[in-house]
Amino acid sequence: MPLRFADHAAEAYQAPLTIRHLLDGVLTKAADQQIIYRDQGSYSYREFLGRVGRLANLLRTAGAEQGETIAVLDWDSHRYLEAYFAVPMMGAVIQTVNVRLPAAQIAYTLNHARAEILLVHRDFFPIIDAILPSLPGVKKVIAIMDWADDNLPSWASGEYEALSAAASPDYPFQDFDENAIASTFYTSGTTGNPKGVCFTHRQLVLHAIASAATFGASSAGPGLGVDGVYMPLTPMFHVHAWGAPYAATMLGVKQVYPGRYEPELICKLRCEHRVTYSHCVPTILEMVIAVAKQTGADLSGWKMTIGGSALTKALCAEGRRLGIDLASGYGMSETGPMISRAVRRFDDQLEDDAILTTLTSSGVTAPLVSARIVDESMNDVPHDGKSSGELVLRAPWLTPCYTGDEKASQELWRGGWMHTQDIATIDPRGEIRIRDRLKDVIKTGGEWIDSIQLEELVATAQGVAEASVVAVPDDRWGERPLAVVVAQPGVTLTLDMLNVPVMSAIENGAITRYAKLDLFKIVDELPRTSVGKIDKKLLRARFAEISGAGAPS
Amino acid sequence: MPLRFADHAAEAYQAPLTIRHLLDGVLTKAADQQIIYRDQGSYSYREFLGRVGRLANLLRTAGAEQGETIAVLDWDSHRYLEAYFAVPMMGAVIQTVNVRLPAAQIAYTLNHARAEILLVHRDFFPIIDAILPSLPGVKKVIAIMDWADDNLPSWASGEYEALSAAASPDYPFQDFDENAIASTFYTSGTTGNPKGVCFTHRQLVLHAIASAATFGASSAGPGLGVDGVYMPLTPMFHVHAWGAPYAATMLGVKQVYPGRYEPELICKLRCEHRVTYSHCVPTILEMVIAVAKQTGADLSGWKMTIGGSALTKALCAEGRRLGIDLASGYGMSETGPMISRAVRRFDDQLEDDAILTTLTSSGVTAPLVSARIVDESMNDVPHDGKSSGELVLRAPWLTPCYTGDEKASQELWRGGWMHTQDIATIDPRGEIRIRDRLKDVIKTGGEWIDSIQLEELVATAQGVAEASVVAVPDDRWGERPLAVVVAQPGVTLTLDMLNVPVMSAIENGAITRYAKLDLFKIVDELPRTSVGKIDKKLLRARFAEISGAGAPS
Repeated sequence: MPLRFADHAAEAYQAPLTIRHLLDGVLTKAADQQIIYRDQGSYSYREFLGRVGRLANLLRTAGAEQGETIAVLDWDSHRYLEAYFAVPMMGAVIQTVNVRLPAAQIAYTLNHARAEILLVHRDFFPIIDAILPSLPGVKKVIAIMDWADDNLPSWASGEYEALSAAASPDYPFQDFDENAIASTFYTSGTTGNPKGVCFTHRQLVLHAIASAATFGASSAGPGLGVDGVYMPLTPMFHVHAWGAPYAATMLGVKQVYPGRYEPELICKLRCEHRVTYSHCVPTILEMVIAVAKQTGADLSGWKMTIGGSALTKALCAEGRRLGIDLASGYGMSETGPMISRAVRRFDDQLEDDAILTTLTSSGVTAPLVSARIVDESMNDVPHDGKSSGELVLRAPWLTPCYTGDEKASQELWRGGWMHTQDIATIDPRGEIRIRDRLKDVIKTGGEWIDSIQLEELVATAQGVAEASVVAVPDDRWGERPLAVVVAQPGVTLTLDMLNVPVMSAIENGAITRYAKLDLFKIVDELPRTSVGKIDKKLLRARFAEISGAGAPS
Repeated sequence: MPLRFADHAAEAYQAPLTIRHLLDGVLTKAADQQIIYRDQGSYSYREFLGRVGRLANLLRTAGAEQGETIAVLDWDSHRYLEAYFAVPMMGAVIQTVNVRLPAAQIAYTLNHARAEILLVHRDFFPIIDAILPSLPGVKKVIAIMDWADDNLPSWASGEYEALSAAASPDYPFQDFDENAIASTFYTSGTTGNPKGVCFTHRQLVLHAIASAATFGASSAGPGLGVDGVYMPLTPMFHVHAWGAPYAATMLGVKQVYPGRYEPELICKLRCEHRVTYSHCVPTILEMVIAVAKQTGADLSGWKMTIGGSALTKALCAEGRRLGIDLASGYGMSETGPMISRAVRRFDDQLEDDAILTTLTSSGVTAPLVSARIVDESMNDVPHDGKSSGELVLRAPWLTPCYTGDEKASQELWRGGWMHTQDIATIDPRGEIRIRDRLKDVIKTGGEWIDSIQLEELVATAQGVAEASVVAVPDDRWGERPLAVVVAQPGVTLTLDMLNVPVMSAIENGAITRYAKLDLFKIVDELPRTSVGKIDKKLLRARFAEISGAGAPS
């Protein structure tokens, strides 16, 4: 027999999963709830909804149409939140621009995405000054003055707040195909030009509900609840800031937007508004903790998801001592981003160190997410917490492609699973642990060396301030590990010093004997990417010429 | 310009929202998590998943095909959970049969739904004995012996556990159209024969995620978290038991299935497994509280959503004194059922009585739910907590129709909104409060009397054990209220006694003077529907002949 389908009543409303519907019920339940911007004021959800309509109208007046790309260059603000909704709700595509990229790369992404209208905060006017001549497709630039009194740039067609105030709050938002693209973002993670990922309305709505289910569904870990106060500390340009602004708005919670990240202000806002939920990279957490230690700010009761790079046990423990409820999450630009989050379970009877081990892992998958660890032939490796392989994924909110790059898209989805290029393990309870980047793995003499494990060892060597390990080509061994280290002040590092912890790990059987270092470089500082990760691509390029005389002994 | 769509990578996996995908990741993260049945044992999620495959195979062997209806008559059990997944995952439709209906009505629903295979618990064999001759479409009945040693009935084609054990755990579940029907249920709420509602895969998946987001997204109210233990206490036949079995399985939490509801066993299971989350009707809560008071069972830390009928402040307060974290929820058979739940917000600074008022309300809407309160012409009435009208809804998981009843379907969805036939108010913070059933409202002398308010008043009169108020026809006034009361033992009730609290409310301006009673009937007990609500339909029918001499004075 065929599948059975319902005889819908003629007038039965068949709700599409479009961004617009994340606002269903919000005016009813949260009309007077507040959305706050820095120490510069706040407004109600009622006003927010009106401003979403105003933004759509001012964009339409500026010539925006369905299917067009509208790009935003702003810090985390109420305006960004307005654009998160208004732009896709019009049927247009919001491009969230990584303002930390070099100007030329920003220009590349705007052209590639065919952005026609830009919303630009005054802090980024110099970028626009530099690249506007190379953006033939841009027809309007709207300036965000952030209440400064300066004159508008000559290229600006108007100022955000003035245009918003002049526009009507009523816009005839319509239902349309939930598979239309809602957002695009460019990731600089790999080689070559940044690659565009994109997400549909359906994907973002599913991501928002699943995100509320994931980050809310725990009484023993970081959660965003209807009784909470939310403040993003992962940039809103970066793949929807974990989707949390969508989820928070859908839930109708109080929200605090911190603008440009300034640790003192962040602490102040947190305390003043009793923020209960944030997400950030470890670097921001470190800065916030440093301020709190100086000022005595009370951070207790603040739940945080940490992502972007690894949360160390030391930082996790330090945050917990200050009362911050910390746990790692895992995601990437291609994944919407939510994939998994660390969680202490009800029946955990763990020692302190084991709790830290759990909280700093990538955690367990969110609902509707399938994760596999596979070898190069896509065979599953055991979930024993030891066997490693590439993490590949399925979920309803993964990017369907790299925009306009069929070859990379095919590679991303090879075999019907999305390839993360992360080398990971999964333990019997589903705890995912990222061990390395596929391209950072060092293959030497037929053995794989986990570069993260090796650099963690080197970092513990006496006199080392910071360390990275990358592969360099080697005629005999294929590749050899090169340690790139920053010395502590006044210390002259030697290969023997670096090898002390490595040799001890080799003797314990914790790492292959091929990991013994024969190459190292001392640098003043390690290069970092726009999201604060050590730029191994650059390190490999810089030191590609190095060739080791050494051989595993 | 047209909307923009992505160029999917050829192999990009486009996840349909089918029930099958609620299990994504479950084996990875919860393989050893336990599912418990009464005091009769438990098994792991690994085994559960195998048994879902076994059930699909045994049904296929019994002749089940895609698009067919497979009906279940069982108490809340691990087998029911298996059927919740296996039947729709095969592409068939699960009919969850209300075993409390009269046998003839059960037969009606099975025939109407075209059920071809039945799974029947031994407690319901007498029903099957009685109705099987009138079920020409049924081709197989599988008996659930629940480990009893009795002989199988002659009409049974096999026993559930034996067939399951003999079947393969591997079944080739496929992806298919997410808009296929997954489940059907018959509601006896209104006049005439029970009406069939149905839900698609897409609807149940969205309901499950939104349910986890709603009941999880609060640290100050009942929630189902990944660190929790779940036990249903609203029957699984009743519109997916709040969708919680789907949500709990998706989250991979420990689950306890109590079988037939026995208050002593429920208390025992709760304490033994430290159940953290349940949902039930007030009657079950009362019974559980009574047992706990007798036995001293510790109910603290048990979160509960109460639905089905109104949670009184007195019962809510009593439960809270025992440490149960209680809140009302609102939903109905037509709505999947989740619509709203009561929630204490972060910034609440409420007095005790006000907290009870909030917790016993129908609460605020879940994500993606729109609620309106409208008059007869579908005009909105103000959200002032006082103005009442019919509650009408939109959400992605409302039944699209009453199966095979076009007229009733059209009426249900008149104007593109689903009509609940509940008279409600919404306050400025979105708190919904059900005031009456549309058909229970009493219209007299041009005034509307809230029958629930009036019967609450009558219930407080001296000597009254229980009270209901229904409309009876009146030539002069259109309708008049009739109080149907159960007297406390040894009391002879009079009209004056009943009117004492009513007159006092009239004097306070709390109720219209048209509410003064001139008609009452004393009965031994109030008739109830299969779900335990007072059967006002029956009361109206029984007392339709009564005509009041009285007139509002």
